[in-house]
Amino acid sequence: MAQKPSIPKGTRDFGPVETARRNYIFDTVKSVFRTFGYAPIETPAMENLSTLLGKYGDEGDKLLFRILNSGDAFSGVDFSSIAENGCDSKALSLAVCEKGLRYDLTVPFARFVVQHQNDLSFPFKRYQIQPVWRADRPQKGRYREFYQCDVDVIGSRSLLNELELVQIADKVFGRLDVNVCIRINNRKVLTGLAEISGFPDKITDITVAIDKIEKIGLEAVEAEMLEKGLTPDAVKVIEPVLLLSGDTASKLSAMKSLMNGGSASGAVSETGLKGLEELETLFGLIETADVKQDVELDLSLARGLNYYTGAIFEVKAKDFAIGSICGGGRYDNLTGIFGLPDMSGVGISFGADRIYDVLNGLGKFPSGLNSSADIVFANMGDAEVRYIIPVASALRDTGIACEIYPEPAKLKKQFDFADRNNIPFLSITGGDEVAAGTVNIKNLGTGEQKSFPADDIEAMAAFIRI
Amino acid sequence: MAQKPSIPKGTRDFGPVETARRNYIFDTVKSVFRTFGYAPIETPAMENLSTLLGKYGDEGDKLLFRILNSGDAFSGVDFSSIAENGCDSKALSLAVCEKGLRYDLTVPFARFVVQHQNDLSFPFKRYQIQPVWRADRPQKGRYREFYQCDVDVIGSRSLLNELELVQIADKVFGRLDVNVCIRINNRKVLTGLAEISGFPDKITDITVAIDKIEKIGLEAVEAEMLEKGLTPDAVKVIEPVLLLSGDTASKLSAMKSLMNGGSASGAVSETGLKGLEELETLFGLIETADVKQDVELDLSLARGLNYYTGAIFEVKAKDFAIGSICGGGRYDNLTGIFGLPDMSGVGISFGADRIYDVLNGLGKFPSGLNSSADIVFANMGDAEVRYIIPVASALRDTGIACEIYPEPAKLKKQFDFADRNNIPFLSITGGDEVAAGTVNIKNLGTGEQKSFPADDIEAMAAFIRI
Repeated sequence: MAQKPSIPKGTRDFGPVETARRNYIFDTVKSVFRTFGYAPIETPAMENLSTLLGKYGDEGDKLLFRILNSGDAFSGVDFSSIAENGCDSKALSLAVCEKGLRYDLTVPFARFVVQHQNDLSFPFKRYQIQPVWRADRPQKGRYREFYQCDVDVIGSRSLLNELELVQIADKVFGRLDVNVCIRINNRKVLTGLAEISGFPDKITDITVAIDKIEKIGLEAVEAEMLEKGLTPDAVKVIEPVLLLSGDTASKLSAMKSLMNGGSASGAVSETGLKGLEELETLFGLIETADVKQDVELDLSLARGLNYYTGAIFEVKAKDFAIGSICGGGRYDNLTGIFGLPDMSGVGISFGADRIYDVLNGLGKFPSGLNSSADIVFANMGDAEVRYIIPVASALRDTGIACEIYPEPAKLKKQFDFADRNNIPFLSITGGDEVAAGTVNIKNLGTGEQKSFPADDIEAMAAFIRI
Repeated sequence: MAQKPSIPKGTRDFGPVETARRNYIFDTVKSVFRTFGYAPIETPAMENLSTLLGKYGDEGDKLLFRILNSGDAFSGVDFSSIAENGCDSKALSLAVCEKGLRYDLTVPFARFVVQHQNDLSFPFKRYQIQPVWRADRPQKGRYREFYQCDVDVIGSRSLLNELELVQIADKVFGRLDVNVCIRINNRKVLTGLAEISGFPDKITDITVAIDKIEKIGLEAVEAEMLEKGLTPDAVKVIEPVLLLSGDTASKLSAMKSLMNGGSASGAVSETGLKGLEELETLFGLIETADVKQDVELDLSLARGLNYYTGAIFEVKAKDFAIGSICGGGRYDNLTGIFGLPDMSGVGISFGADRIYDVLNGLGKFPSGLNSSADIVFANMGDAEVRYIIPVASALRDTGIACEIYPEPAKLKKQFDFADRNNIPFLSITGGDEVAAGTVNIKNLGTGEQKSFPADDIEAMAAFIRI
C-alpha cells in the first residue's frame, strides 16, 4: 500500500534551484571568510544533552530535539513507580534520551574549543556553516531545521578582530550586491548607562527597553523603564541617549561627556568610557579599511543577548524590509561553562534564510543558477550520440555543463526538456553534421546558431560562455 | 561547575585541516556532477518514521535514531497498563517518537521525487551530499554520523545514464589523482544464472555466495551454495562463471553461450541474454568516451543489494587497500513504495570517509589545505597596522587569504603562529617600511624575501601565488 509522502512540519525540501541559490550564498560567505584566514570546522548534529541543557534558558531546554537512546531505551524505566506516582516527563525524557540535536553553533563551538584546546593555536579563527534544530512552533519564516553561518575568533581581545568582522560583512554583501547598513554598539556603553542612571542591576531591563526605540518610540520606551522600576530621574539620565543624532564623532563625543559626569545624575562610569574608547578605536580602524557599505554607530542596538560584553553588530538590508540579516558581538567568557575561563571571543552570524529572501526579493540571484546545464545535445539516434559523446566530454573539461538527452525522443519533447530546465543552449547534431564533421549549437535566448568543426572545442566553449 | 566536554560515541568533530580536506573531496565531486548537468537537492535531517520504517529491513529499523516528540511526549501513554502488562518497547517508542534521522539518501530521494513529481521534469538528474545517521555499534571506520554523496538519474532507462556515471567516476578520481578500477556487472545476468541453474528463487543466495569469491575462494563459495540448498548440478552450471578470465569481449561471449543453452543444464535465459546485451552496449559506449581509468567487467560483483535490477557498479582504489570507495546501480522501482510505479533510476554513491583515507594514505591532498591563510602580516604596532590594513584588504580582493596578527606581541610569538598554522608567507613591515612606502614579504619555505611598493598589489599577489 502506497504511503502519501510528506516531511515533518517546520522542515523543508530544497529543490535544484533553491539549493543552487542557497549554495551561492554559502559559497560567497565562505570565499570571503577564507580570504580573512578563517578556517572551517564541523561538529556533530547530535550533542550530549549535558552539553546543551541549561545553555539557552528554560525555554531553550524545551525547544531541544531529543534523541531516544538506541537499543531498548525503556529497559531501565520503573513503570510501576510512574503508574503509582505519576509521570515526571522531564525526568523520564532525561532517562530515555542522552543526546539532542544542536540548537545553535555557539555552544558546540565553545565545547569544541575546550575539548580540543591542546590541538588549537590561539587566536583561533573559525567559521561553521551547518544546520541547527529547534522545536519552535512552525510559522512563516520560522523553521525547525535551518542553517546557521557563524564566523568567530577566540583568544584575542584586539579590536582588529572587530574590524575584520565589519570588513567581512562589507565584502559579503558587496559580493552579493546588496546595500546594507552595518550598525555597531558596545555593551560596555549600555552598562555605563545603567551605572550613571543609578540602576546598574537593571541593565537587562534598560537594554531591552532601549532595543525597542525604533519599534515603539520614545514615550513607550520611557514608560517601560518606569514600569520596570526605574525612577523618573534615572529615565532622565537615559533620555539623551535615546535622542542622540548627528554623525558618529559627535555622538561619541556627546556620550563621553554624559559618562564623564555630564548627565542629569552627574555620575561617572569608567566602564562606559572604556566602551566609548573601544568604539572610537574601531571606527578609526574602519576608516583606514576602505569599507564600502554604510557603517553606523547605533547606541540603541542591544540584540537582547546577555552574553555580549563588548562590541555588538547588526546588519540590515537598505532596500528590502526584513529584520537583521547578520549580527553578533564580543563575549568574554564563552568557554567558561566548559572549564576554560578568560577566553574572549567575537563573532557574527549570517542569516541564510533572510539573505535568501532579500536576494530573491531584489532579483539579485545570478540567472545561471536557474539551470543545471549550459547546453543539451539532442539525441538524434545511436550513431549521432556516439559522435557527440567525446565532444560533450571535452566541453565538460573546459567547465561547460553538458547534457546529452538520454533517449532518441521526438524533437518536440527534447526542446521542451531544454525549455523547462532553462538550459540556454541546444545542439541538434544529426546525420548531415556527422558526415560533415561539424557540431551545430543554438543560443536559445538570442536564436543565434553556429556551426563548429567537431574538434574546435575552444570555439564552442567560447560561444556557450558568452 | 565545569563539565568535561565530550561528544556522543560514534560521532566526530572535524578540525580545520580535516574539514578543508573533506571540502576538497566534496567540491571535487560537485564540480564534476555539475558538468554532467546534475542539480543539487537537499532534504531535511528528520523524516517521518513512517517514511523510514520498513525500508531497510528489521535490522535497519533498529538502527534508526528516533526523535522524541516535542511538547510532553509522554502525556498520552498509559503507564498503568505498561506497569501491569510489561513494556512493549517497540510500540512505546512509536507512541513517543514520530520522527527519525535519515538513514541514507536513497529513501529520502524517492520520497522527494514522489512528493514533488509535479514540479520536476524527467529525466531528473540530482546529486545530494548530506549526513546520514545510523545507531550502529561504533568501531574503527564505522560512524554513527557520516556523509553520503549520491548522484542519481530517475525517469530514464537509457544506458547513456550508466555511461555518464562511469564517466563521472572516471573524472572524479582523475581529478583526485587516484588510480581506480571501475567494475561493472548486471543484475539480469545474475538472474539469468539463477535461472539456468534451475534455482531462480535462490538468486539472493547465489548472489551473496558469488559476491564472496574474492574473499573466500571457489571451494568455499561452492560449499556455501550447496549449503543453501543448490544441487551439485546447479553448482556445476554456475562454476564456469566463477572461473571466467580474459578480456571483456571474451567474457561476454562466453557468458552469452552459457545463457543461450551452452551450460551444463542446457537451459536458456532471456533475462540473462538481455543483461549481457546491456553490458555489451555499455562497454561499447565507454569505448567512445575517452575514459581514462580501468573499467572491467566483473561477473562476481553483486554488492548484495536486492533492489538493483540492471547495471551494478563498484570502484576500488588500485594503490591503496580499502573496500569499495564508490558504488551503485540501476533500480527499476525505487519510488513504488511511495505510490509512483515504473520509475527507473540509476545512481552511484561516493564514500567520502574512505576516499579521505585513500587520499591521506597516498599523500594526495593538496598542501594548501593545511593552512587557513596564505600570508600573515606581523603586528608591529598601531601605526604599522593602519598602514597594512588597506594592503591586506586589496590583496584579499585578488583572492589571497591574509591575516593581520591581532596583537602587537613579541615577534617570536608571531613567528610561531605562522609556523603552527603552516602559513607559507610572512610580512614584517615596520617603521622603516612605512616611511619608505614599501611592504616586505618573506617566503617561509624558501627563505626568499622581497620588498614591494605598498601599492603594487599585483606584484605581491604574484609572489605569494607561486
